Amino acid sequence: MHPSAPYQLYYWPGIQGRGEFVRLALEEAGVPYVDVARKRGERGMPAMLASLDGARETHPSFAPPVLRAGELLIGQTANILLFLGARHGLAPRAQQGRLWANQLQLTIADIVDEVHDCHHPLSTNLYYEQQRPAARTRAADFTAQRLPKYLDYFEGVLERNRARGNHAVGARLSYVDLSLFQLVAGLRYAFPNAMARQQAGWPRLLALHGSVAQRPRIAAYLQSARRLPFNEEGIFRHYPELDR
Amino acid sequence: MHPSAPYQLYYWPGIQGRGEFVRLALEEAGVPYVDVARKRGERGMPAMLASLDGARETHPSFAPPVLRAGELLIGQTANILLFLGARHGLAPRAQQGRLWANQLQLTIADIVDEVHDCHHPLSTNLYYEQQRPAARTRAADFTAQRLPKYLDYFEGVLERNRARGNHAVGARLSYVDLSLFQLVAGLRYAFPNAMARQQAGWPRLLALHGSVAQRPRIAAYLQSARRLPFNEEGIFRHYPELDR
Repeated sequence: MHPSAPYQLYYWPGIQGRGEFVRLALEEAGVPYVDVARKRGERGMPAMLASLDGARETHPSFAPPVLRAGELLIGQTANILLFLGARHGLAPRAQQGRLWANQLQLTIADIVDEVHDCHHPLSTNLYYEQQRPAARTRAADFTAQRLPKYLDYFEGVLERNRARGNHAVGARLSYVDLSLFQLVAGLRYAFPNAMARQQAGWPRLLALHGSVAQRPRIAAYLQSARRLPFNEEGIFRHYPELDR
Repeated sequence: MHPSAPYQLYYWPGIQGRGEFVRLALEEAGVPYVDVARKRGERGMPAMLASLDGARETHPSFAPPVLRAGELLIGQTANILLFLGARHGLAPRAQQGRLWANQLQLTIADIVDEVHDCHHPLSTNLYYEQQRPAARTRAADFTAQRLPKYLDYFEGVLERNRARGNHAVGARLSYVDLSLFQLVAGLRYAFPNAMARQQAGWPRLLALHGSVAQRPRIAAYLQSARRLPFNEEGIFRHYPELDR
């Protein structure tokens, strides 16, 4: 517990989900944070829900993750990373680099949305089991068409970056690299067959995944209890029938 | 034609789509821009596509809209608006307000994605007519559950803003107001029945739609040939069977 931690993260307690992109940035920054819904037991969930529509909040969020930083309450994953990146040296200082990092992060958000819709193509209010035939159609399209289109794009981004180090933006690690690590990890969990068939086409992306995993703070995080396992309640879900 | 215009917008020529959120900001700012794919005839589309993966671009975009501003090439709608908002007084100057505006814009992007998936729940590579039963299920869920959840949220944002003028952020017009105008306009086009049934619950949002439409530059734009009509190739599509 860090009662005086500078950051409180509000996110669902049992999944990596979109909150994981924020956790990875906080871990790499090495800054204390409270994962509110997980650490406060029964009081955690009400606190998380209050960040969404609490009567005291002037800036309520539509959905988690939400980050509290002193007086600031910040929602939307890419927006939280924009803030953390600038504050903790996880993004370029110049405007051009900042915008480029944000653009890439928003494109990662887009593929993450599409991964979610593979198991929930018809409604977020129905269980996966209630929309399985549609999920099969959507996932087949995703793994054959959309997944390679997105990963070809990110591979090209790494290829066009002339700076040393195989980073997405410039010559230093940014939150975009951390998010690409998470994207590759999630896709390998959810779609191991589709990834095994195609991943030889993305050598830079796989190398980036490997190098991020070996960063000291990230490696320590991944081995800690703070890193939740992937599971079938998160965004990256492994259903064999969706990964033919 | 503005051969020396400070901005070139790259977007599909026949639809409002996501490009419209950028057009509205450019129009309100009163700054000249070239809508490249529409104004250059046969040379427009190749120029637009080159902004996505042209060999000369170091910052290619995954999808349009893309804005060229001198040396900068910027993709992702919310990212373009982040840039334009800061440059043309269409966003607060302080960090807190900037982040709040960006957060709201990303939430607008989320509902826009869900509107798109109403007519394309299974695949963007199939026609609507090839996924009509799934579209009916998704649209029924959207109009009954998701649409009111989002619009209740935006109504609450307007209600919690204590500043005068019924703006989303602070006391002045921002690009978020322009985007909320477009959201209401699009939803009324696509789902007139669902909106007519429910819209009494969102008086502030409807008032904002009306006040934006009456701003001199926006009113002039809406009456010009630059404003494309809504149609069934864009994001907001009217299919009667999806609006019971």
